[in-house]
Amino acid sequence: MALMNGEQYRESLRKLRPNIYKYDELIEDVTSHPATKLHVDSVAHSYDMSFDPEKGKIYTAVSHLSGQKAHRWNTLNQTVFDQVGNSDMKRDQFRWSGTCQGATCAGWTGLNVLWAVTYDMDKELGTNYHERLKKYFQYVEDNALALAGAITDAKGNRALKPSQQKNKDTNLHIKEIREDGIVIRGYKIQICGVAAAHEIIAVPGSGYGEEDKDFCLAVAVPRDVAGLTIVETRRPSDSRAEEEGWDSPKVGIITQAYLLFDDVFVPNDRVFMCGEFKYSGKIIGNFAAVYRAAIGACVAGQGDVMCGAAINMARANGLSSKTFQDKLNQMAINNEITYGIGLGAMLKGKQHGSGLFVPDALLAHVNKTQVAKLPYETKVIAQDISGGIAETGCMPTYQDFQSDLYGKQLLECLEAGTDGESRVRAARLVEWLTVGGGVPGCMHGGGSPDGAKLVVRALSQWEKYAEDAKRIAGITGEIAEPPKKK
Amino acid sequence: MALMNGEQYRESLRKLRPNIYKYDELIEDVTSHPATKLHVDSVAHSYDMSFDPEKGKIYTAVSHLSGQKAHRWNTLNQTVFDQVGNSDMKRDQFRWSGTCQGATCAGWTGLNVLWAVTYDMDKELGTNYHERLKKYFQYVEDNALALAGAITDAKGNRALKPSQQKNKDTNLHIKEIREDGIVIRGYKIQICGVAAAHEIIAVPGSGYGEEDKDFCLAVAVPRDVAGLTIVETRRPSDSRAEEEGWDSPKVGIITQAYLLFDDVFVPNDRVFMCGEFKYSGKIIGNFAAVYRAAIGACVAGQGDVMCGAAINMARANGLSSKTFQDKLNQMAINNEITYGIGLGAMLKGKQHGSGLFVPDALLAHVNKTQVAKLPYETKVIAQDISGGIAETGCMPTYQDFQSDLYGKQLLECLEAGTDGESRVRAARLVEWLTVGGGVPGCMHGGGSPDGAKLVVRALSQWEKYAEDAKRIAGITGEIAEPPKKK
Amino acid sequence: MALMNGEQYRESLRKLRPNIYKYDELIEDVTSHPATKLHVDSVAHSYDMSFDPEKGKIYTAVSHLSGQKAHRWNTLNQTVFDQVGNSDMKRDQFRWSGTCQGATCAGWTGLNVLWAVTYDMDKELGTNYHERLKKYFQYVEDNALALAGAITDAKGNRALKPSQQKNKDTNLHIKEIREDGIVIRGYKIQICGVAAAHEIIAVPGSGYGEEDKDFCLAVAVPRDVAGLTIVETRRPSDSRAEEEGWDSPKVGIITQAYLLFDDVFVPNDRVFMCGEFKYSGKIIGNFAAVYRAAIGACVAGQGDVMCGAAINMARANGLSSKTFQDKLNQMAINNEITYGIGLGAMLKGKQHGSGLFVPDALLAHVNKTQVAKLPYETKVIAQDISGGIAETGCMPTYQDFQSDLYGKQLLECLEAGTDGESRVRAARLVEWLTVGGGVPGCMHGGGSPDGAKLVVRALSQWEKYAEDAKRIAGITGEIAEPPKKK
Amino acid sequence: MALMNGEQYRESLRKLRPNIYKYDELIEDVTSHPATKLHVDSVAHSYDMSFDPEKGKIYTAVSHLSGQKAHRWNTLNQTVFDQVGNSDMKRDQFRWSGTCQGATCAGWTGLNVLWAVTYDMDKELGTNYHERLKKYFQYVEDNALALAGAITDAKGNRALKPSQQKNKDTNLHIKEIREDGIVIRGYKIQICGVAAAHEIIAVPGSGYGEEDKDFCLAVAVPRDVAGLTIVETRRPSDSRAEEEGWDSPKVGIITQAYLLFDDVFVPNDRVFMCGEFKYSGKIIGNFAAVYRAAIGACVAGQGDVMCGAAINMARANGLSSKTFQDKLNQMAINNEITYGIGLGAMLKGKQHGSGLFVPDALLAHVNKTQVAKLPYETKVIAQDISGGIAETGCMPTYQDFQSDLYGKQLLECLEAGTDGESRVRAARLVEWLTVGGGVPGCMHGGGSPDGAKLVVRALSQWEKYAEDAKRIAGITGEIAEPPKKK
Repeated sequence: MALMNGEQYRESLRKLRPNIYKYDELIEDVTSHPATKLHVDSVAHSYDMSFDPEKGKIYTAVSHLSGQKAHRWNTLNQTVFDQVGNSDMKRDQFRWSGTCQGATCAGWTGLNVLWAVTYDMDKELGTNYHERLKKYFQYVEDNALALAGAITDAKGNRALKPSQQKNKDTNLHIKEIREDGIVIRGYKIQICGVAAAHEIIAVPGSGYGEEDKDFCLAVAVPRDVAGLTIVETRRPSDSRAEEEGWDSPKVGIITQAYLLFDDVFVPNDRVFMCGEFKYSGKIIGNFAAVYRAAIGACVAGQGDVMCGAAINMARANGLSSKTFQDKLNQMAINNEITYGIGLGAMLKGKQHGSGLFVPDALLAHVNKTQVAKLPYETKVIAQDISGGIAETGCMPTYQDFQSDLYGKQLLECLEAGTDGESRVRAARLVEWLTVGGGVPGCMHGGGSPDGAKLVVRALSQWEKYAEDAKRIAGITGEIAEPPKKK
Repeated sequence: MALMNGEQYRESLRKLRPNIYKYDELIEDVTSHPATKLHVDSVAHSYDMSFDPEKGKIYTAVSHLSGQKAHRWNTLNQTVFDQVGNSDMKRDQFRWSGTCQGATCAGWTGLNVLWAVTYDMDKELGTNYHERLKKYFQYVEDNALALAGAITDAKGNRALKPSQQKNKDTNLHIKEIREDGIVIRGYKIQICGVAAAHEIIAVPGSGYGEEDKDFCLAVAVPRDVAGLTIVETRRPSDSRAEEEGWDSPKVGIITQAYLLFDDVFVPNDRVFMCGEFKYSGKIIGNFAAVYRAAIGACVAGQGDVMCGAAINMARANGLSSKTFQDKLNQMAINNEITYGIGLGAMLKGKQHGSGLFVPDALLAHVNKTQVAKLPYETKVIAQDISGGIAETGCMPTYQDFQSDLYGKQLLECLEAGTDGESRVRAARLVEWLTVGGGVPGCMHGGGSPDGAKLVVRALSQWEKYAEDAKRIAGITGEIAEPPKKK
Repeated sequence: MALMNGEQYRESLRKLRPNIYKYDELIEDVTSHPATKLHVDSVAHSYDMSFDPEKGKIYTAVSHLSGQKAHRWNTLNQTVFDQVGNSDMKRDQFRWSGTCQGATCAGWTGLNVLWAVTYDMDKELGTNYHERLKKYFQYVEDNALALAGAITDAKGNRALKPSQQKNKDTNLHIKEIREDGIVIRGYKIQICGVAAAHEIIAVPGSGYGEEDKDFCLAVAVPRDVAGLTIVETRRPSDSRAEEEGWDSPKVGIITQAYLLFDDVFVPNDRVFMCGEFKYSGKIIGNFAAVYRAAIGACVAGQGDVMCGAAINMARANGLSSKTFQDKLNQMAINNEITYGIGLGAMLKGKQHGSGLFVPDALLAHVNKTQVAKLPYETKVIAQDISGGIAETGCMPTYQDFQSDLYGKQLLECLEAGTDGESRVRAARLVEWLTVGGGVPGCMHGGGSPDGAKLVVRALSQWEKYAEDAKRIAGITGEIAEPPKKK
Repeated sequence: MALMNGEQYRESLRKLRPNIYKYDELIEDVTSHPATKLHVDSVAHSYDMSFDPEKGKIYTAVSHLSGQKAHRWNTLNQTVFDQVGNSDMKRDQFRWSGTCQGATCAGWTGLNVLWAVTYDMDKELGTNYHERLKKYFQYVEDNALALAGAITDAKGNRALKPSQQKNKDTNLHIKEIREDGIVIRGYKIQICGVAAAHEIIAVPGSGYGEEDKDFCLAVAVPRDVAGLTIVETRRPSDSRAEEEGWDSPKVGIITQAYLLFDDVFVPNDRVFMCGEFKYSGKIIGNFAAVYRAAIGACVAGQGDVMCGAAINMARANGLSSKTFQDKLNQMAINNEITYGIGLGAMLKGKQHGSGLFVPDALLAHVNKTQVAKLPYETKVIAQDISGGIAETGCMPTYQDFQSDLYGKQLLECLEAGTDGESRVRAARLVEWLTVGGGVPGCMHGGGSPDGAKLVVRALSQWEKYAEDAKRIAGITGEIAEPPKKK
């Protein structure tokens, strides 16, 4: 069963032990609970699309292990075109659901990246992580699994290293190494798509030195593993998505979870790094290169929806969308910029010895800086075009529109280029995309833009540039960095 | 009783007939109902500040009618310094509550503007509107009233004039003129601060020609006038403000209402325009000049809070706020730009024959374009500094933090440069200011930036500029606009 | 003779000793030499405008000394409206000549600022600088003088203080104090308008401590004082302004000079500071406040010309300028922003005890940051509208257009919405304004934007903002700046 | 002789008939005349680099005709990697010379594009243009030729088509069709690199309909063909590049020419389109896709030099370049954005049936919009970092620095973190790059950004976006474009 459809996927989720909470209540069934259902729905759509004659090319790929067709998120990206497929699937997913889909994203990326790093470790250290991972990868493919990726630790005080934190649990760590596996403990937070995933791939949240080697662990755990408690977070206007009515779109939703690992045992065949601190930076480095090349497609996909939402609002207001053509163009340009730079990073990428294709780090990080910038501009334009009611969704509640007393009048208030209900829904979508539950973490999701700038700094050839400029200027004297002040 | 304190103000509101709804339920007491209480609280604070030895200068002014000290929002702005007072009060109010305070804003501005327009009408048409208004103004001062201002109509199809709409109610209009007053009917929407106001000043939503003279009316009505039904709107994450807990700040809040006028009778002494369409544009013109000169102070005040919120988050994360000094500077610069251009508009303003001081329209509208731009940049910077948890407030709910099962661990997750609860609260404030209930209508509030640009176009001396440039370029040949294509 | 006309002004300049050089050649007559003539012409225009019935109000003011009408640049700015006059004169001058006019600007500002600082010094130190200055100010008014202001020193190594430089001459300093005066020595560079000035007001280039007290001097010297050698600088495409033909506009021009003071003696009645280092910062502080409030008007004036130049180019290309209305609007908005913030700084200003009106420092420095930003955007728009030939002035030389062989064909190449010559001239103006001799020093003129940001940092109430945000967020825990790392 | 070195190249140019003018004077030898020498030098460097062991990979490619190594600018781009080579060569050329190199750019692109369009014409019309072109392409390779590309016509009135212009010569056209060839006539202007080219490839400046079929011609002519007169244009501060001294860098320079075709005969084997108007749009379309994908690398290369120039200036001022790290990062990010989007366009490109690889048009045009924007920001940052003397190069002339009287003192004025001469040269480079002769035509070079936006508009799937948004919003009502007003 390398491919599973949406209904099979939902069925498989229902078999997991309930260990996810929100509002201090246990979620018994993630496929029907309002806090998680919409995210599961959007992932189910990706499963279904794998069978679609046209979309199938986007949602599946040929497995490097079996040579069979598999869900794209169960395969290794071996070529530049596989990475383009990553981009194109994400853009299509965002176009479908209007927002982010965690359970086919970061876990998959983590698995890909571990493919390369375990290869290096085995080669250089004589470990057998790569073999373990290969088996696990095959297991993922065979079972058509959705994977969440747990990277971000709770961290604690940003000015201190993990080992310096007063509470060691603020970062996920190895508590005990046993013969048959390891016991892990601590907090991973803001983890996307957990509720819709079968398994969780956990990797270090940063590159560490020897003093922090306890924090250098890579594992795969079932979502319902013993000792793991998961708490879903509150996002802007999330309660609306959980209610009846049109105050929030009902197609997809982001879920983000806090993972509380309370002495979770991981058997050896699911352990892919255990203290090899020198390789922790490689995981993050490769993860960032892969992830940040593709992330431009995510925001482009959501940007496409913003274009459409703005066009609808213009028309719903009674105006031609052509009135706003310059602004719409600017939205489209913003979308293509992040999509395009990501492709550029891929084209400049290289295949790692293990087979993983790794995009160019400089361009991938440049992309991150734009992902943290351009979608905000696009949102502002969407609000600009859409008019006052869409700006903060300044309209009565769904319940008020149903009022016997004044519901009819409220609908009259909103009727314009289309009927009142359609205009309300159109406006609520703009709200949701710009100041509501559909807003993804463009700024810090996948790491901060300031972090990306550090990479830009590290990878740019400043001294080469200075030399070129000296030559062109015809300078023969010395121009040196001044001595450091004491 | 020219001055009233916060408690007296609350008491006075409680006497009004309940006619405000939300979630299809009647709000019995606006001073205690969670949907309106916080807005009332913030207005009550302004009443209290009128007695404060230091802040009193900001919150009161000398009445042009009585010569007595009065709440600033009960007085006429006669000088450039009165308009500066308008700005400074608004900046202080935003700093206090973090957001907009409708009940001391647009109604007051409407009253000021009517002062000038009724003066002109009486002089040119021989009406006695100005005398009526003078009495009403005195009544406002004597009773220390809070006034909402109803400008925006439901409008209907944006491409059609009010008289062309298929449903005449989409714009508030005169249904009948009687000897003792007029009957008005129709919808005003997105009206700020109604729940905290005693009275509503309604003026035309645009400048109209003769065919739309039925829509040219200016009146004052009690908030609880017979025939008026009010529905409060849903804003981003508003339900949190209405719940217990720290998922939303509990100091102030915006309210915006839909006003359904169902054959409301207004006696003559409260009617200040009734069909004099030629003067409808003057109302809007003056309103925009006054309002858009001051609006830069509003967003500056909220920007000040964003600066503070970002500083707190940096520290709560364990970092020095100085790390982000360049970004903080940019936030402060954005704040001062909108504040400063507004002051510039005031300094270039002129006193109208009636005594009203009117800021310069060109600079006021330029300010609007920046109000629709810079606060968005400021928000993005606030999110950039604050880190991932603040970006979309990606943290567990208040209820989860209270969980016996895992509440303690969640607080551990968030502890960093300060205790967990403080950090959550700090992050929730950033969310509230940037993608939550604290976001005011920078884009379309007080009219759209595209509308402002039309004024910039109309008031700029394009041909003069072209002539200057011709002279400097030494051009003697003719350079003319090409003939229009047929 | 409190007022002088343009011809009298030129005559007075001709009487000065020639001590200005360019291309290693002495300029015998600044009123006719091509390197300086155009700047003198533009200043002469300001002299003439003082007699103009309409423009006279802009170019003259009432003297605080004599109570008589005087050239505005010979008077003290005592009120907010005097400072507005400063702004409006500068905007008008830029509109006239297309560029900067040094000889009625920084020297005048220096004199104004010294009025306040000498007042403080006399009061606090018992000196008699203010009396000296009063006499000198009267002399300036009586003789209707044009004054250059020399602030910027050559500086040397930016990382070292003046007294630490290996060559003391890199900053103008007191070499010797004699009974009857002082001997000064060193370099002031990039001094605007010297060639068109009668006198030079020199003040310290920064605020200094005791170790640099030799650099704390303020004096007035005749432009042709013994020991002073002046070298005019090369600016973009300056040789065209010095040639015959239309490759550069022929109305005004910037001059910037290097002043080499070689043991120049200054008699006591022209010495206004001599070592009082504690007051050097006050000079710079007040200078910046006055200058940076007004500088927004300068760039707005040039921006007005850019608007006109772009309109002309659109039409010269055969297109309606309305095609570019959005872009033109943005140019106008940029112009009004810097003009408006400057006015805002004035409105928030205060009168000093000496009578000088000092604009608000925070808003003035915010303005500087925008002056270093918005004109660049305006230039880009001007190039965008104007099309390819204007972008870098990519057209044949004036001489080629005169060619018997092919001149006629070249004119045919350029003919479009107007005749070929007019279109070339229009395009050359855009080049001159955007990448040519008309470009003023928006970035560093009057000090750098980074310096302005330091002031923004110092004058913003960061801790107050943080406290407000804590209160609104409901935080009771401590959120403090982390301890400094050792 | 498929490869030629720099000296052979110069020698080959000297053999051409002199027909280039500037300042109404004939340029006898382009390899030594100051107006053209520097451009020839930079092209000669590319010829030399073809033999360089390391750089050879960038500057050569394998010919699709001969299978032999050839100068890259003599080959067909058949794969995505050939287009990357186009980008990388251009970035390297800009890094070498600091600016644009016309003679290895647009002519080559024109030849590539004609390869595809002649293929289509022959296939669909039965013409034999492709065969002719193949022979000519081989001739180019065999003789290792440098080609200028002439696209832009003088155009005349922008609001009229070529056939509507009152002077038909404003656009290059077919005057006569003879048995053995055609006679062409009219003006191509702003043609880059002509002085350093052996031949000129002329193609239509736009896509035309039947009424303009006389303007649909594609030919190759020797630069010195009978009847062709060439006039080089004046660029910012160009006279400095033609003088002795350091007031301008002396490595490379842009040349742009006006081509006056006065009944030039072109034999049939050099005619590749002659009236086939339906294919004129294809030429422009393919040209734009190829050119605008690569143009991002051009401005990135110049941006690299700007980074270096700014670093040198910081140090020359005595400061650490690290002080400006954030600003340098932003420069690097801007460079990589345009480079990266161009690569993205390539990766999304497709191979045409003829073998030409054509980048994706949407992303290529998006790139053009950024090329018309980001380099301007980069320039502003370079000026910001560099300080006042670099802003407009406000320093004495080279001649003044040589003065016996004061040259030594001037050098002392400029000495800081390095010797005076080095600092002057460093500052002059910043001037040259930002407001001088090094500024390329980012805005309109290769067509205007407004034109690019029309393509973005045409290629974006607006209705698809609107449909997606409707579905996500849950809208079932109709939202349609309003009927056009009559």
